[in-house]
Amino acid sequence: MKNINETLEKILQKVTPLIGQGKTAAYIPALANINPNQLGIAICDINGKVYSAGDANTPFSIQSICKVFTLSLALKIYDSDIWQRVGREPSGQKFNSLIQLESEQGIPRNPFINAGALLICDMLESRCSAPNYQLLELLRKLSGNYRIKTDAKVARSEMQHSARNAAVAYLMKSYQNFDNNVETVLESYAHHCAIEMNCIELAKASIYLANKGSSLDSKVQVLSAEHVKKVNAVLATCGLYDASGDFAFRVGLPGKSGVGGGIIAIIPGRYSVCVWSPELNEAGNSLAGTAALELLSQALDSSVF
Amino acid sequence: MKNINETLEKILQKVTPLIGQGKTAAYIPALANINPNQLGIAICDINGKVYSAGDANTPFSIQSICKVFTLSLALKIYDSDIWQRVGREPSGQKFNSLIQLESEQGIPRNPFINAGALLICDMLESRCSAPNYQLLELLRKLSGNYRIKTDAKVARSEMQHSARNAAVAYLMKSYQNFDNNVETVLESYAHHCAIEMNCIELAKASIYLANKGSSLDSKVQVLSAEHVKKVNAVLATCGLYDASGDFAFRVGLPGKSGVGGGIIAIIPGRYSVCVWSPELNEAGNSLAGTAALELLSQALDSSVF
Amino acid sequence: MKNINETLEKILQKVTPLIGQGKTAAYIPALANINPNQLGIAICDINGKVYSAGDANTPFSIQSICKVFTLSLALKIYDSDIWQRVGREPSGQKFNSLIQLESEQGIPRNPFINAGALLICDMLESRCSAPNYQLLELLRKLSGNYRIKTDAKVARSEMQHSARNAAVAYLMKSYQNFDNNVETVLESYAHHCAIEMNCIELAKASIYLANKGSSLDSKVQVLSAEHVKKVNAVLATCGLYDASGDFAFRVGLPGKSGVGGGIIAIIPGRYSVCVWSPELNEAGNSLAGTAALELLSQALDSSVF
Amino acid sequence: MKNINETLEKILQKVTPLIGQGKTAAYIPALANINPNQLGIAICDINGKVYSAGDANTPFSIQSICKVFTLSLALKIYDSDIWQRVGREPSGQKFNSLIQLESEQGIPRNPFINAGALLICDMLESRCSAPNYQLLELLRKLSGNYRIKTDAKVARSEMQHSARNAAVAYLMKSYQNFDNNVETVLESYAHHCAIEMNCIELAKASIYLANKGSSLDSKVQVLSAEHVKKVNAVLATCGLYDASGDFAFRVGLPGKSGVGGGIIAIIPGRYSVCVWSPELNEAGNSLAGTAALELLSQALDSSVF
Repeated sequence: MKNINETLEKILQKVTPLIGQGKTAAYIPALANINPNQLGIAICDINGKVYSAGDANTPFSIQSICKVFTLSLALKIYDSDIWQRVGREPSGQKFNSLIQLESEQGIPRNPFINAGALLICDMLESRCSAPNYQLLELLRKLSGNYRIKTDAKVARSEMQHSARNAAVAYLMKSYQNFDNNVETVLESYAHHCAIEMNCIELAKASIYLANKGSSLDSKVQVLSAEHVKKVNAVLATCGLYDASGDFAFRVGLPGKSGVGGGIIAIIPGRYSVCVWSPELNEAGNSLAGTAALELLSQALDSSVF
Repeated sequence: MKNINETLEKILQKVTPLIGQGKTAAYIPALANINPNQLGIAICDINGKVYSAGDANTPFSIQSICKVFTLSLALKIYDSDIWQRVGREPSGQKFNSLIQLESEQGIPRNPFINAGALLICDMLESRCSAPNYQLLELLRKLSGNYRIKTDAKVARSEMQHSARNAAVAYLMKSYQNFDNNVETVLESYAHHCAIEMNCIELAKASIYLANKGSSLDSKVQVLSAEHVKKVNAVLATCGLYDASGDFAFRVGLPGKSGVGGGIIAIIPGRYSVCVWSPELNEAGNSLAGTAALELLSQALDSSVF
Repeated sequence: MKNINETLEKILQKVTPLIGQGKTAAYIPALANINPNQLGIAICDINGKVYSAGDANTPFSIQSICKVFTLSLALKIYDSDIWQRVGREPSGQKFNSLIQLESEQGIPRNPFINAGALLICDMLESRCSAPNYQLLELLRKLSGNYRIKTDAKVARSEMQHSARNAAVAYLMKSYQNFDNNVETVLESYAHHCAIEMNCIELAKASIYLANKGSSLDSKVQVLSAEHVKKVNAVLATCGLYDASGDFAFRVGLPGKSGVGGGIIAIIPGRYSVCVWSPELNEAGNSLAGTAALELLSQALDSSVF
Repeated sequence: MKNINETLEKILQKVTPLIGQGKTAAYIPALANINPNQLGIAICDINGKVYSAGDANTPFSIQSICKVFTLSLALKIYDSDIWQRVGREPSGQKFNSLIQLESEQGIPRNPFINAGALLICDMLESRCSAPNYQLLELLRKLSGNYRIKTDAKVARSEMQHSARNAAVAYLMKSYQNFDNNVETVLESYAHHCAIEMNCIELAKASIYLANKGSSLDSKVQVLSAEHVKKVNAVLATCGLYDASGDFAFRVGLPGKSGVGGGIIAIIPGRYSVCVWSPELNEAGNSLAGTAALELLSQALDSSVF
């Protein structure tokens, strides 16, 4: 145990020099103005033991990491029917591109590009009475922190800059692959992205993906063991935008990044990990965070390949 | 004169067999359910003499033909500044494609694809107190029929199927190339497309493009002579969607088509023409109408090339 | 007459300041190292009267202007069958792009992008015993200069940099739209592009496109009057690469440019024009040349629109 | 052991009904005319124990499976320098597409699409005296069958239908990312694809990817343990063409398919697998083969996720 904590400290030391070489997300002021000089990491094992280092207690905007949890909620409701409306192939394109969506008749390539995530929100909207509340409740239960909430200012800022996502949603609507009011779903999606959690909470919340679908205390079976494998497979091929191949190559783990600078990664049967540092590389993934996960994967010999 | 009327009659006879080989526009019921068995043509010379044949007095939905008149209104207001926000190159893509718009940062290729037309509506919205009214007034003055109006049912139906155009508008907005409320501009655009006019009225209304910018009675200088040449140039390279090259090849005239089945064509210095038949070819242009214009261009030896 | 010569002199004076603001073609040394400080113009009327100014007697590499003449040769042999294998629509893409060729099964959009021109060479190869010789003979007859020839050094340099064109040709071959040996056709195409002519010769050689298909002395009927209109239509929509719309807008004439800095333009029924200045704009067309044609078109009030 | 053999038999029984629902590769007669009614599977554990069922001794054309071995050879020679010239991201496009190659300046997305594999052949050509012989020698040593060879008739047939690959190679050459003579490299690639092996031989030959880089008898260290993880990562995200995401989702293993109907899959630390059935699904992967691997992965609980 002490060992792992030491390992985490050493890893953070090694990647700290990367800070200053990336860029914080520019598209909304709330994210652009964050102090870039932050770096945290947390690991949770399947028995609930947590290790951490650096700014692991500082909450940040989870952004696209929310897509893992909304997909899980949707799988619980729709089961395999979900794959009628969204694919599970890497897109080979930018996360917010409309090009493929046009040539493939409004079916998003996977649930982790923006189009796919908006579609999942649309599906939740159709069948949940209060999807935002349900997502928050799930994250609270999984992490054990019942005060997790959306940063209203960030959510508002997201909505003010949601034209691109609106275009994506309307394009799907034009292909009859979007059922609810676009504005409503965009609001919902903005609220999901603006949820604030810290590394420890996200590591805990993600453990079901390393633990056959079960939460730490076994009180919540988020997904079946079979669904977990499938979600991890989609994370491994599509979870880091257009740098998923590079992440598999360097880290070798299913993972999901957000433009807030967080990345979660799953070591199946063993650990869930969350790392955070706000500056992003060109692909939109945390620069220091990716490097830290690469070192961690080597240290724990945990590449699935 | 009698000669021209005879020519028109003969042309309609020759192209009538094409009826049944195309398809009416399918995307809104109001257009899909039209009687396809209609065919009309009208020519107007620069002295105001009008010749016509067939169903030249039957009003139809002008659809994209409205783009010629909104561009003219916008040129009057913005002059060359218009070309800061919209190009004048053929797109080589479907009229409603978002692909190029994404790779060219929200600048539409030309004012006659949907993106460009919506942008022109956005520009009018910024500077006109009542753009829909101004457009109707212009068309009424130019055609001499003061009862020209929008078919409210068609406009409503357009709005109900406007998701694709909404996607296009929001994509431009995401690139800061769209200033007004998207819904408002879509409403305005739907009203323009749903205006009803007949062949004779459209031929009269278009004569300024053959007449150095001046209306029939010289009471309205719609555009300067220089602007007219430029509008005609854009019509010649971009006016018939992704079949503009074929139209230049077969007809050799600046023209603009609409999915209602109407096509206007300009014989600079001599005539304006409008032909109408509801069934469309694969490119979305009136099948019999294009054929009629090809014959007319030969009969009058009027190709500009 | 004196008038026209004066007009030409004035135009050259006005556009001379543009020299230094463009770039000579970079892809082969023979073109990159040319003295950029050259500018010439020539006009030929349908009676054979020639006017010129500047460096109108200096030979230059005609490059893509050859495509007009090879298309004319092919039309003479194949008539309308040519359009089974090549389209006549603007591409909306770079002149050497393979993207559209892939999505449209190896049918080039038009005969003036590289793919289309290579296809025309392939067609000539199938039916001419010596296509290069035939092209030279045609140009010699039309221009009256029997010493016109290919610059062997330029042709060799073209071949050394022909990988992109080879890719284009092989892609068509993979769609069964290319019949002959790729290397052979590339050699032929390189020889056509490397032909050297001056402005006066090119203006004379092009007069058939303003003169219902007939050469100056009426000894050669290059094309039928009908074919001339069609070639001019394709020139007007596709002749200046991905800036054809802009050329129509500014100049309003059918035209064809080459990366050697030459541009020919046709004023139907009246004149053929050739302008030359080696520096190109971003679209690959002569910068000063385009500006000169814009002024000339205004001076002669010759826009076809 | 008996257990595994029984499992394999049962799996083949279950997937046999799929035969007749796919299509053999159509592009060369040698592959199109194969008896589609064949199905074999073989597993090799890291101690060299082999299990098999069905037509596991029938040789077939390995086709794109060769890409795994040529990449391994190239990694041995070039180490990480390889990634200067080829990426490791899923392409999101057809395996033989040129579109991305054009927009990404001749750098193939990964070594398993055709462009990437041709590039690897080009790299081998630059540094091996006899790359074809070296590949055969490697496969012979790894599989223990010293009579493995290329089917000359298939290789010849590939060359006769190599226009698309020629286009791909020339496009890379035009971006200075291809050093050798295109024809030479195409010949070499055709010979690799036309190698004939059976399921047992391919399973044995692939064991180094499950065995930290070492061959069965430990006599050959094909790759370092670290390189193995990286090759497996690229296989997992890019190994099954544009259906790699689906394969990860259904099978959860690094794998590589060929249009001859073979697929190899790696269960890291445990097994290598080869399945073969000539009929392909729409993505170009063996239809019954993919289904068999899905069942096997479930039976052995071997998904890496």
